Amino acid sequence: MEKVRRISFRARATLKLSKPLEEEKRNELSNWIKLRAGELLSKGTRIKEEAAKVENFEVFDNKIILEISSGRSVRPHDALARLRKAIGEELGKKLGIGVREIQIEDYEIIFEGSNFRKINLPFTKEITSNENEVRVKLNLTEKEIYSQVPDRIVKLFLEKQQEVPTGKEIHEVRWSSQQKPHKYNVDPSLELVKRGWVKRFDQGIWYYMPPFAALMRTMEKIIVEEIAVPNGFVEAYFPKLITLEVMRKKGQLYGIPNEMFYVCEPISRDASYFEDYMDKVKVTNETLPTELLGKLKPPTYALPYAQCEPFYEIFSGEIVDVDQGPIKLFDRSGFSFRYESGGLTGLERLNAFNRIEITYLGTPEQVVEIRDKLVDSYQRVLDKTLDLEVRTVEVTPVWMAHAGVTSDVQRSVPATLDFEVYLPYRGERETSEWLEVGNASVHFDKYMQWYNVKEKKEREVWTGCSGNGLERWVVSLLANHGFNPEDWPKEFRKYLEKLPENIKLVTWP
Amino acid sequence: MEKVRRISFRARATLKLSKPLEEEKRNELSNWIKLRAGELLSKGTRIKEEAAKVENFEVFDNKIILEISSGRSVRPHDALARLRKAIGEELGKKLGIGVREIQIEDYEIIFEGSNFRKINLPFTKEITSNENEVRVKLNLTEKEIYSQVPDRIVKLFLEKQQEVPTGKEIHEVRWSSQQKPHKYNVDPSLELVKRGWVKRFDQGIWYYMPPFAALMRTMEKIIVEEIAVPNGFVEAYFPKLITLEVMRKKGQLYGIPNEMFYVCEPISRDASYFEDYMDKVKVTNETLPTELLGKLKPPTYALPYAQCEPFYEIFSGEIVDVDQGPIKLFDRSGFSFRYESGGLTGLERLNAFNRIEITYLGTPEQVVEIRDKLVDSYQRVLDKTLDLEVRTVEVTPVWMAHAGVTSDVQRSVPATLDFEVYLPYRGERETSEWLEVGNASVHFDKYMQWYNVKEKKEREVWTGCSGNGLERWVVSLLANHGFNPEDWPKEFRKYLEKLPENIKLVTWP
Repeated sequence: MEKVRRISFRARATLKLSKPLEEEKRNELSNWIKLRAGELLSKGTRIKEEAAKVENFEVFDNKIILEISSGRSVRPHDALARLRKAIGEELGKKLGIGVREIQIEDYEIIFEGSNFRKINLPFTKEITSNENEVRVKLNLTEKEIYSQVPDRIVKLFLEKQQEVPTGKEIHEVRWSSQQKPHKYNVDPSLELVKRGWVKRFDQGIWYYMPPFAALMRTMEKIIVEEIAVPNGFVEAYFPKLITLEVMRKKGQLYGIPNEMFYVCEPISRDASYFEDYMDKVKVTNETLPTELLGKLKPPTYALPYAQCEPFYEIFSGEIVDVDQGPIKLFDRSGFSFRYESGGLTGLERLNAFNRIEITYLGTPEQVVEIRDKLVDSYQRVLDKTLDLEVRTVEVTPVWMAHAGVTSDVQRSVPATLDFEVYLPYRGERETSEWLEVGNASVHFDKYMQWYNVKEKKEREVWTGCSGNGLERWVVSLLANHGFNPEDWPKEFRKYLEKLPENIKLVTWP
Repeated sequence: MEKVRRISFRARATLKLSKPLEEEKRNELSNWIKLRAGELLSKGTRIKEEAAKVENFEVFDNKIILEISSGRSVRPHDALARLRKAIGEELGKKLGIGVREIQIEDYEIIFEGSNFRKINLPFTKEITSNENEVRVKLNLTEKEIYSQVPDRIVKLFLEKQQEVPTGKEIHEVRWSSQQKPHKYNVDPSLELVKRGWVKRFDQGIWYYMPPFAALMRTMEKIIVEEIAVPNGFVEAYFPKLITLEVMRKKGQLYGIPNEMFYVCEPISRDASYFEDYMDKVKVTNETLPTELLGKLKPPTYALPYAQCEPFYEIFSGEIVDVDQGPIKLFDRSGFSFRYESGGLTGLERLNAFNRIEITYLGTPEQVVEIRDKLVDSYQRVLDKTLDLEVRTVEVTPVWMAHAGVTSDVQRSVPATLDFEVYLPYRGERETSEWLEVGNASVHFDKYMQWYNVKEKKEREVWTGCSGNGLERWVVSLLANHGFNPEDWPKEFRKYLEKLPENIKLVTWP
C-alpha cells in the first residue's frame, strides 16, 4: 500500500517594496540574489537537493517577482520569509527601503506516489491528480506563510491518505466480577418516569426529583470517599465555560466539534441594543431564536465535554517539578454536556449529566501506578459496595478519538480501561450490551505536548484522567436491585439513611 | 401627567376566497354584511361605541375588501377573525366556498392624549405624531392577527409611555447585627490570587484550587445544614440548560436578554458536516469562531441566570393542591452564569458562580411564613456562625426587574430582602458599599400566572425563592477574619477540620 514517494513544492510570489529602486540598485539586487540566495535557502538542511532554489526572478522598480521550488527541506514559505528578511536588511541598510508585503500568486504542493484517495483540503484553489501524483494548488496570504500553514496542509494530506477505517476497535476484557443472581429485570428509566423520581425538561435533560437526587448524592459520596480520597485526590472546582482555545489544545475542537454545545455572549451588554428584540418577544410571546442569534457574538466557549479539559490548562506555559510528587485533583462542581442526536429516551444517554472527574499528572511510573490503583478501587466499589456484575475492559482510547487521532505507537500500557456493568433487562450477559459506567486513562505525554507544559529538568511527564457517569451508576443500581430500598446492598445503604419523599401534584406524577 | 385619553383603531383588509362568486351571490353577501356585521362585531361588548364597525366594504368575485374602525372593545383584528369565520360558514354551507386568507393592507392605532414621548415599537411601518395624538401604522400578516399582536403593541406602547426612571430604588435597612471589631483590612481577592487559592481561567471565570474549594464546600454545608434542611427543604437537581421558552415565561428573555449566555447546538451531528472547519482549525491552529458560528443553529438554551427558572416550570400546565402543604426544594447542582461586562478582577462579581437556590410554593400565608423563617436562619448564620457584621435590607425586587416590570401594586409584604455584609477593606461602614451575599423573595402569584399553573380549587398560590453566592460568602469570611484558619470563628471551624494543601508548580503560584 505504498503511497507518497516524494513531496515537492513550487511557488511564485511578489515581494513589494516600500519605495521604488533605481536601475543601478536593481542590478545590484539582482546580483545579490544570484550570489547569495543559494546559500541562504539551503542553510541548515542536511540534504541539499531537498532545499529551496530560486528558479527564476525579476527585479522591478517597486517589486521583486520570485519563482521558488523545493523538496521537503526549506519549503517555499520558509524560503520567502528568509528572502524577505535578508533583502529587507540589505536594502534597508543601504537605501532605507523595506519589503512591505509578500503576495503569493501560486503555491503548489506535488505529492508523487500511488494509490491516492480523493480528499478535501482547506486553503485550496484546485486539486488535480493522475495515477502518479496529486497536485494541490493553494490560496495563501502572507499570514499563512508565516504561520506555517503549508506544513500543516502536508501533514493533513498524509493523515487523510492514511486514514484507517475505524472498524479495528479494541474491546478486551481484563477482569470480571463473579456472576450474580438478578432479582430485577425491568428498564429502570421507564419506572423512574412513572414514579416521578425524574421529570423530563427537554431532550436528554431532566429534573432529578428528591428520591433520584438523594441516590445521585449517595453515588457521589461513595466515589469521593471510596475512590478519590483514599487514592490521595483533593477537590478543586474546574471552570465550566471552556474557552475554544483550550478545546483546541485538547484536540476536541477539530476532533469532535459536532458533539459539543457552544456558548455565545451578547454583542453588547447595553439593554438598548436588545430593545427591538425585547419588544418583539413581548408582542409575539415567541422566543425568536434567529433574531436573538443576530444579537450574539460568535461562540466564545464550549460547555465541558470531557470535564478535564481545564485540568491540563492549569500547567500550560508553566514549569512543573516531578520531584514534588504527582498532582491529583478531582472536580464535581457541575454538569458535563454532550450534544447527542435526537430520540433520547432513557437516562443512560443524556445531553447533560453528572460526573466526578479525577485527574492526575506525574512521572510515567507515577501515572501508571495511580491509574492501576484507581482501577482496583472502581472494581471493588462496583463489585462489593454496589454488588453489581461488572467487568474491566481495555478499549480504544476515547480521548485520542476525541482529538481525531486514530492510531498511535504501540505502548506497553493500556491507554484506556472501561468499567462495564451488566443490565439484566437488556438480555443475556453474553450477548447484550453492558453499560459503561466509568473509565480510567493514561494519556502518555500527549497533553503535556499539546498544552505546552515543561518539566524543571525536562523529565518525561504523563497525565491521566478518570471519569464516570453518576446517572448511570444510579441506573445500574436500580436495574440490578430494583426500586425497593430494602433490596439494595447493605454497604450501599450505609451511605443513604432514608430516601426522601417526593413532591406530589394533582396531575403528576 | 395625563397621557392617553382615547385609543382607536382603523384597518383595511382583504378576505381572499377559495373560488369566485357569481354576481347574484355577491349581492347576497353584500346584504348579509350590511344586515349582520353590526351585531356580530359588537357581541359581548358593554360599551357599543367602543366596538368595531364596518365603515366600508366591497365584494369582488374572489375577494372582499373591508374597512373597519373600532374603539377599545372589539378591535379590527378580532373583528376580521369574526367576519372570516362567519362569512366562511355562510359561503361554505351554501356554496362550498371558503375564506382562504386575510391580507392586511393597513392597520392603524390612534392614541389621543398629550405629553407623549418618542418610542420605538415592533411591527411598525410608521409612527407619526402631533401634540394631541400618536398614530402607529402596523405591518401585519394573518399570523399576527390571530396571535393578538396588536393588543400587545397597545400594552407595550402604554408601558413605554409610563416608564419611570429607575432612580426610585428601594433600599431600607430592616435589621442589623451588632457592630464588630475587625482584625483584617485587605481585599481578599488579591491575596487569593497571590496565594494561588484561585487561578484565573478567563474573564470572570476561575479555578478554585484545593483551599478555596474546601471553603466553598464548607459554606455549602453550612447553608444546607443550617438554612435549607432545618426549614424543611429537600434537594433536587434543576436543569442547567434552560430552554428559551422557560426564560421567556420567567420574563428574562425580554427583561435581561443582554445579561445572559446562550447555548447553540451544531446544525448536524455528522462529523463530515464539520470537515472543512476541522481541517482549517488543524492547519491554522486557530479557533475560528466565525466559521464555527456558521455550523451552529440559533440558540436553543440560555445558561441558568437566576437558577430557579426551571422550578416554576415543574408546575407549568399542571394542577397543584395547596392542601398537600407547601412545596420546598433546593438545588446545588452546578454553576449559575451572568454575562458581566469587561474589567472583572475580584471574586465578588463573576461570570460563573455557585449558589444554593432555595425555592418554595404554597398559599400566600405559607410562602410569607417560609420566607420569614429563612430570613431568621440567614441572619443567625451570617451573624453567629460566620461572625460577620450583617444587615437585612428591603430592596427593589430584582426578579421583577429581570422581567422588565418596574412598578407593581402596593403590597403589605416586602417582595425582596437582601442580606448585606460589611467589608472593612472597602472603607467606613457608614459610607462604603456592603456586599450582597443572599436574598429571599416572595413573587406573589406572578410566576403562577406567567407559567400557567392551576390550583385544584382555584385558591391563590404564591411562590418564592432565595439565592446566595458561595464565592461571596468565602470572600466575606476572608475579608473580615483574614487568611489564618486560627482566626476563623469557632462555629465555622466545626465544619472544616483542616484546610487542604495546595498544589505547587515551579512557576506558580
